[in-house]
Amino acid sequence: MSVNYVLINDDFVLKQDASILISDLSVQRGYGVFDFFKTVRGEPVFLDDHLDRLYASAADMFLQVTLDRKALEKVIRQLMKKNNLPDSGIRITLTGGYSEDGYTIAKPNLLMTQSALTFDKAGFEKGIRLVTFEHQRQLPHVKTIDYLQAIRLQHFIKQNNADDVLYHSASGMGECPRSNFFVVTNNDEIITSDKNILHGITRKKILQLTGFNTAADAIHPEQITSVKEAFITSTTKIVLPVLSINGNTIGDGKPGTVTRAIFNRLLSLQGIK
Amino acid sequence: MSVNYVLINDDFVLKQDASILISDLSVQRGYGVFDFFKTVRGEPVFLDDHLDRLYASAADMFLQVTLDRKALEKVIRQLMKKNNLPDSGIRITLTGGYSEDGYTIAKPNLLMTQSALTFDKAGFEKGIRLVTFEHQRQLPHVKTIDYLQAIRLQHFIKQNNADDVLYHSASGMGECPRSNFFVVTNNDEIITSDKNILHGITRKKILQLTGFNTAADAIHPEQITSVKEAFITSTTKIVLPVLSINGNTIGDGKPGTVTRAIFNRLLSLQGIK
Repeated sequence: MSVNYVLINDDFVLKQDASILISDLSVQRGYGVFDFFKTVRGEPVFLDDHLDRLYASAADMFLQVTLDRKALEKVIRQLMKKNNLPDSGIRITLTGGYSEDGYTIAKPNLLMTQSALTFDKAGFEKGIRLVTFEHQRQLPHVKTIDYLQAIRLQHFIKQNNADDVLYHSASGMGECPRSNFFVVTNNDEIITSDKNILHGITRKKILQLTGFNTAADAIHPEQITSVKEAFITSTTKIVLPVLSINGNTIGDGKPGTVTRAIFNRLLSLQGIK
Repeated sequence: MSVNYVLINDDFVLKQDASILISDLSVQRGYGVFDFFKTVRGEPVFLDDHLDRLYASAADMFLQVTLDRKALEKVIRQLMKKNNLPDSGIRITLTGGYSEDGYTIAKPNLLMTQSALTFDKAGFEKGIRLVTFEHQRQLPHVKTIDYLQAIRLQHFIKQNNADDVLYHSASGMGECPRSNFFVVTNNDEIITSDKNILHGITRKKILQLTGFNTAADAIHPEQITSVKEAFITSTTKIVLPVLSINGNTIGDGKPGTVTRAIFNRLLSLQGIK
């Protein structure tokens, strides 16, 4: 494996040495926020959107990003240069810092990691199967590091022969732990959940696409059985067709034409061939 | 400051060197459980209850405690001997481990820290003021490291001139982030919330006390204004009288006689003079 660097506050360190003290509030209290973006052929994708969200998440959690926007962009470029991974995912995490009493927010620790990430279109053709679970994430609009339910539910997902879990609550169908959820109605209306979810960047880009009839609105559980297509979106997955939910086939159980059209538009937006 | 040791898996290290890799699932995904108990004059207090709960929390989160019960008790004694802090708090944390993909549970990391902790009875006379907040913790029966809301609400607590927050939900009044909640009715019935809370060890001991009329039951918000006394309980606080909730005085605004009687019984149970 090639040499990989990680940024911890002001220092670039080797990945295998990248550590923080256990007094950090992420370890003590699960307290932190993050964001994650891709680079494609050496260029960050939708960087402004991701950094806007990172600063907003931090502010919502009373954490101050230790670098201003310009300085942060500079170290992103430095890390990219050191690692030389043109196609990658970069994660920036901001934790609650080294807390004297294990409870009070201290000076945040800034962690930046980069891993190789190449997009495989074969995943689109394969699609995914979802299983639903009643759960409402706390602070849904903030990209916190809280994935307690998501990771605990890995067993449940396997037991149900599914690939991922779709949370639902009184507000309707919500989101997957790391993806937004969309349905395509018989009128080719493309609807994504509107309330109590994380506002994904890919989701935002889809809502802005011209030539499609998109909307953010409540998706009721009983709608699921009658939709033509369904898909999930994320930075890593871009667009993945949902072929079944709770064992019930969506449409004809194959990636749909609307989903494919959206997928192709996003590939082109991101410069992926 | 004197030398303080921390256990990280198989190694005793100095507190200032106690670190874990940032690939740990606590840092990446807020994934971990813990427990916390006291030592009084060199003896752990209610150790069996705390270790029972730790193993139960771990099992619920699909984490295997890396040491069996006997081996864990042995390293607790070793840490106590090395640190020589007769009156202390010991925290055992079990994290999701160093995850290759940042999402899948790996071999857990076991962290054990000890800090001096002497009980100050003056806190009882001072009492505390609570402010309520509508929130239901996820996985309430499990002692996870998730304190996102608790820490985020520190500003809210200050703004409301309170000392701590009391969560409530459709099930009624619940718990404070690190304490259980009790009320004393005009008939001297001592009631603590029954549903969707963490089952505190101090709470358990109170429910087992003879000579008091105790019960676990729903506590409705409208009851709060008419109770004679209220108090919170935890390993650290033991019993703290609640003198006001949302600015409304409870009883005569002083520590009540029933609360004081419970407090004295617990001091005696724990060998605190």
